[in-house]
Amino acid sequence: MSILFDRITLIGIGLIGSSIARDIRELGIAGELVISTRSEATLKRAEELGLGDRYVASAAEAVKGADLIIVSVPVGSSGAVAEQIAPNLKPGAILTDVGSTKASVIAQMAPHVPEGVHFIAGHPLAGTEKSGPDAGFAGLFRGRWCILTPLPETDPDALGRLRGFWVALGSRIDEMDPQHHDKVLAIVSHLPHIIAYNIVGTADDLETVTESEVIKYSASGFRDFTRLAASDPTMWRDVCLHNKDAILEMLARFSEDLASLQRAIRWGEGDKLFELFSRTRTIRRSIVEAGQDVDAPDFGRHALDVKS
Amino acid sequence: MSILFDRITLIGIGLIGSSIARDIRELGIAGELVISTRSEATLKRAEELGLGDRYVASAAEAVKGADLIIVSVPVGSSGAVAEQIAPNLKPGAILTDVGSTKASVIAQMAPHVPEGVHFIAGHPLAGTEKSGPDAGFAGLFRGRWCILTPLPETDPDALGRLRGFWVALGSRIDEMDPQHHDKVLAIVSHLPHIIAYNIVGTADDLETVTESEVIKYSASGFRDFTRLAASDPTMWRDVCLHNKDAILEMLARFSEDLASLQRAIRWGEGDKLFELFSRTRTIRRSIVEAGQDVDAPDFGRHALDVKS
Repeated sequence: MSILFDRITLIGIGLIGSSIARDIRELGIAGELVISTRSEATLKRAEELGLGDRYVASAAEAVKGADLIIVSVPVGSSGAVAEQIAPNLKPGAILTDVGSTKASVIAQMAPHVPEGVHFIAGHPLAGTEKSGPDAGFAGLFRGRWCILTPLPETDPDALGRLRGFWVALGSRIDEMDPQHHDKVLAIVSHLPHIIAYNIVGTADDLETVTESEVIKYSASGFRDFTRLAASDPTMWRDVCLHNKDAILEMLARFSEDLASLQRAIRWGEGDKLFELFSRTRTIRRSIVEAGQDVDAPDFGRHALDVKS
Repeated sequence: MSILFDRITLIGIGLIGSSIARDIRELGIAGELVISTRSEATLKRAEELGLGDRYVASAAEAVKGADLIIVSVPVGSSGAVAEQIAPNLKPGAILTDVGSTKASVIAQMAPHVPEGVHFIAGHPLAGTEKSGPDAGFAGLFRGRWCILTPLPETDPDALGRLRGFWVALGSRIDEMDPQHHDKVLAIVSHLPHIIAYNIVGTADDLETVTESEVIKYSASGFRDFTRLAASDPTMWRDVCLHNKDAILEMLARFSEDLASLQRAIRWGEGDKLFELFSRTRTIRRSIVEAGQDVDAPDFGRHALDVKS
């Protein structure tokens, strides 16, 4: 592939940042790839892994002369990063991010962005439960959605170049307004993670069932939740704090529904249970048909189970 | 392998029953394998699949002369099945089941079992989200736990023979009392399924986010829940009705914890969120170390995702 940007700077080199780095190198779409991250140990690790061309501790230094800057840090740190790098951003540069909440990131970053720099917030819907520069891999974004949340004043040419970047990485692009993004993500991602963290916490606190029993028999359903509940704690703390309203609304709806389900169990309302348990099956089928999950039973884990 | 039982009768030939049938045939551990199920269509399908040696619509007829009878029906039907087959059970025969609740199954079945017949309730912790005779496969129980819940008066020799049967299928065996089984399963299996059904229902009911958006972006977490929520509705209705007390206790704990988590989000208590989100990571690690889940990121789905 040909060079899309003469210089790309990545700020933050965890699971997402390091996957982007690997794709950029593999595709050869940057003239130079500069990597910056706050932690000295992580920057050193990035260098050991050969993720970039240059490694710069200071974010402010790292963005100098960059044509594309991608910020991949926990959303609570977006504002501080924007403040640090703002004075050194090159006119005409594109600044984007990968955070899981968009209204908050825009509110934090936009005020710092100097005129002539194109700030377009974004969110690639990709990842695993692992974190850190070793957890990334080339191809993470292939076939996955990337949601961009341009504003009415966004420059169409810059937007086109950013779309081209994600397309090069294999992503499918959608655009929506930041508030709608945050509502959609609250239900498809934030609520599931919070519920998973919560149930694993509940299981950890029991007195009558031991933790070793929970672990031993976890394959009967529980283990599915532990995967999401193993995600990066800093990232998820920040998501909860920065998409509060949408998350609280989804939690309220979830709790109402759960209270009603609990009541049906208490009063032995079999028909009501059966109706809910049948309805949810249809959604699974649609997800598989939309190519958004594998059809293999048990996520195809069985073969792996037996081998291990 | 040599013959362990001269005649085995399977009552119910869904995911579990048909997987047992396939193992029995593959291992050659039954002199004769008799299959019975209430639905005419399912019995015909079992015959087309060649799952047994004989196919008998009447459960009462099917158990005649059998040395081992395995009942694999939704737990709410256990009592009716026991009543039908009781008059024809051969003295010395072993009667067992595979239901996900044990105290209720014992309460329903035991009163019907004639003297001289060994009734030992059991529960192989294995399965997928699929159901019906086509969904079964040989090897489903390999490396998985099977919990037996013998009573103080259970004949040790019969218990030994039943253990031998599950060991032949590759299972690891545990014994516990029925009440404890029901508490353990309430947390490791029943609560996770109920929560999964509930969250999928909540997502289905939104007005601001469309169902097609939920499906499209489900890979960001939501899809994990849809797998459990695609499980057999009749089976899960019965589990909810027949392990009510333990399930309601776990639901109450879960809801308390969720209310506290919700409060932490509302009031921006980042430290509290971080503490919970870090603690749950440890449990995931223990589950992987105990060989109860694969270590591959995203359940190893990524490779399958990209291929599809």
